[in-house]
Amino acid sequence: MDSFMEAAFNIAKTADFMRVRPNPLVGAVVVSGDGVILGQGCHEQFGQAHAEVHAINNALRQKSDLSRCSLYVTLEPCSHQGKTPPCTELIKKHGIKRVIVGSRDPNPLVSGVDVLRNAGIDVEVHNHPELIELNKEFFVNQRYQRPYVVLKMAMTIDGKIADRNGNSKWLSNELSRKYVHEKLRPSADAILTTYNTIIKDDARLNIRKQDGSIYDKNVLVIDRDLKLLNRENSGLSIFQTHPNSIIYLFGAQKELKKVPDNVRVIFTDFDVDGNINLEVLMKLQFDLQHYRMLVEAGGKLATQLLMHNYIDEMHLFIAPKLMMDQHAIKFINANTILDISSTKEFELTEVNHIQSDAYLIYVRKFL
Amino acid sequence: MDSFMEAAFNIAKTADFMRVRPNPLVGAVVVSGDGVILGQGCHEQFGQAHAEVHAINNALRQKSDLSRCSLYVTLEPCSHQGKTPPCTELIKKHGIKRVIVGSRDPNPLVSGVDVLRNAGIDVEVHNHPELIELNKEFFVNQRYQRPYVVLKMAMTIDGKIADRNGNSKWLSNELSRKYVHEKLRPSADAILTTYNTIIKDDARLNIRKQDGSIYDKNVLVIDRDLKLLNRENSGLSIFQTHPNSIIYLFGAQKELKKVPDNVRVIFTDFDVDGNINLEVLMKLQFDLQHYRMLVEAGGKLATQLLMHNYIDEMHLFIAPKLMMDQHAIKFINANTILDISSTKEFELTEVNHIQSDAYLIYVRKFL
Repeated sequence: MDSFMEAAFNIAKTADFMRVRPNPLVGAVVVSGDGVILGQGCHEQFGQAHAEVHAINNALRQKSDLSRCSLYVTLEPCSHQGKTPPCTELIKKHGIKRVIVGSRDPNPLVSGVDVLRNAGIDVEVHNHPELIELNKEFFVNQRYQRPYVVLKMAMTIDGKIADRNGNSKWLSNELSRKYVHEKLRPSADAILTTYNTIIKDDARLNIRKQDGSIYDKNVLVIDRDLKLLNRENSGLSIFQTHPNSIIYLFGAQKELKKVPDNVRVIFTDFDVDGNINLEVLMKLQFDLQHYRMLVEAGGKLATQLLMHNYIDEMHLFIAPKLMMDQHAIKFINANTILDISSTKEFELTEVNHIQSDAYLIYVRKFL
Repeated sequence: MDSFMEAAFNIAKTADFMRVRPNPLVGAVVVSGDGVILGQGCHEQFGQAHAEVHAINNALRQKSDLSRCSLYVTLEPCSHQGKTPPCTELIKKHGIKRVIVGSRDPNPLVSGVDVLRNAGIDVEVHNHPELIELNKEFFVNQRYQRPYVVLKMAMTIDGKIADRNGNSKWLSNELSRKYVHEKLRPSADAILTTYNTIIKDDARLNIRKQDGSIYDKNVLVIDRDLKLLNRENSGLSIFQTHPNSIIYLFGAQKELKKVPDNVRVIFTDFDVDGNINLEVLMKLQFDLQHYRMLVEAGGKLATQLLMHNYIDEMHLFIAPKLMMDQHAIKFINANTILDISSTKEFELTEVNHIQSDAYLIYVRKFL
């Protein structure tokens, strides 16, 4: 990455990700013919001006004629009318002669590079890994048209998530569990789980921060037979802990029972083994504005998601214990015939310890 | 730990562990009645003077009468004639009035505290965890009369050490494998393995450092039927890579075949399932001057050692892969009925990453 692209990268990172999402972080700089940065800018807020607009407007304050200038932008400029006009039109309008693109937009509606080239502009295209990493959520959202999926799992060193009786309280330590409330749940738009996890632990799945604040996010529950709606489950805590969000039950039953106010039932496909059709589940999420999903469930769902390459990031809390029991509940429960050369590959991005728990973060090698 | 014990601790750590072992690192300071350190010293080399001797001799250069002095020593003073005279005699001889012991000696032959108390000396005994940690090898050696055992294992995130066909080349990355040669094998007196590991990988089990130096340490091979001595195995690399050390084969066969010069056969007990009697194996090691043992073997031996609490330290290299196959070879292969409250507990002491491998070090909670 040259120094002008680096400048654009740095300005991109100054924006607040939570205000921009589900849009990407983008930075742009306008550079004069003799190599001086005339203007720079970033995309600051979803629905508002793109980085190119800020950079060009700032440059115009220095110089009215940008025809000998180059534009460095971290992501391919948009060419379609969205919430704002296409950036390619603005670039053409000011006669900018050269555009350097740091990463290609995975959205097929964006063909800014072609539009600019057709207008006779010299376009150079890179795919800098740092820029893709910066917008990994956006890239996954656009490329696969599904949420960015984060799997959280607490396990023993030997890969067990509960003993043979299903007891998992507590594998990870208190600080690790707090971390889930401080960081993992707040960063997600929704939590994906199963009726089984909710019933077994009477899981509340809300966010209880150390400063005493409590809030809630949408929960997606795979519940083929809508067991959560059975009378004996009406006392579950989760119905009380989600006053400001919705509990979506994904079920196969056609007859609809009376549901509490904060519950919606979505009918969907399950196969003969009782596994939900994940493709359908994923496709539904953008309509619910779920761009980042946290999975907190058992080994069966985790395995199914991993098998189908739906896990983009794994947060593993490894308790300093060995279960030493093959009949204990496993993190991965699959019998695919794989040899050593065809294992599922991840990238280790962080290793930490939270007291005596190891806390490892992996990302999928998705590009 | 008060400041005088801290001073003794610090001086203990100045000694070179490799020159002192299998003795412990020990430091001592002599403090005057008005709180001035008159002398200090540490145990510098196996077979030579103990820390107390150096500290007292140094103090005598400042002051001939030590009767109002206190002695702070990180480990209980010896009371028996070993390679050097008992330190308790020296303390008594100089009439030191108070002795503060930082940790009790696990060796039953050492009863320095009692000897000093019987002589009317005021003795204060602590068991500072840092001091026990400092000499964890020595404590294990003395308490259990066996080597300190370090298990090295390379595995996937889901706890598999090879695919279902037994193929494990390569799980961990090249740098992780180099680390084994740079650090783990050099720190051990012997490597414990099985005939199976040697035959499967044609393992050389010597030390090949990055600076080009190559050397070898004793290898202990569990080989009930002495398969390594079969004609078809005579070409195995291990017989060539151990010119300066001995390969001990632990077998059950009574008839002895002709063995290469660097091989010794030790007959020992195996149970009906073919498992070696680990107690016998461990008991033999001090005679061979093996005080620290590195285990490089498969899941079966690792599990057996863990089940019997013979693993003091685990070095786990976790490759960023999921095997996703229940029929792949497991790190732990046991069916003990354990619930969550009775798992094997360890302490996580280090988390690192070696490129994309996570490298975790655990120690047993042995005290």
